[in-house]
Amino acid sequence: MASIPAEFKGVTAVTKANVYFDGKVVSHSILFPDGSKKTLGLIYPGKFHFATDKAERMEIVAGSCSVKLDASTSSPRSR
Amino acid sequence: MASIPAEFKGVTAVTKANVYFDGKVVSHSILFPDGSKKTLGLIYPGKFHFATDKAERMEIVAGSCSVKLDASTSSPRSR
Repeated sequence: MASIPAEFKGVTAVTKANVYFDGKVVSHSILFPDGSKKTLGLIYPGKFHFATDKAERMEIVAGSCSVKLDASTSSPRSR
Repeated sequence: MASIPAEFKGVTAVTKANVYFDGKVVSHSILFPDGSKKTLGLIYPGKFHFATDKAERMEIVAGSCSVKLDASTSSPRSR
């Protein structure tokens, strides 16, 4: 796994949180000068299915989880 | 209550979350060019006593709570 930056410089931080799954998945959006967006957040213990409209990359800063991609026939992989 | 900015521009966002009270109070730090710091986070339902080493201002972006200041003899005030 590529190393995760400790911080992102020169961004715009959105104050209001994004809250999903009854608060078990939460994040704050940060906007980059090039128009791209990331979110910084937390996933609480549980099992969640994330649907996305477009390709999305999730990186783990701390902690661990098991991941299973839709349409994958293999067992969940630990990250 | 003063209005809360929707966003903070030109900041550095720290990727790793600050986690307190078993995850019931969480935040991400954002650093300002003048060296000051804020955090953006969430407080889950519960009752928490926040101790601080120095003066700290908490602003509510969404939701509501009751607040009682240490050494205050008055009843908790809704915010």
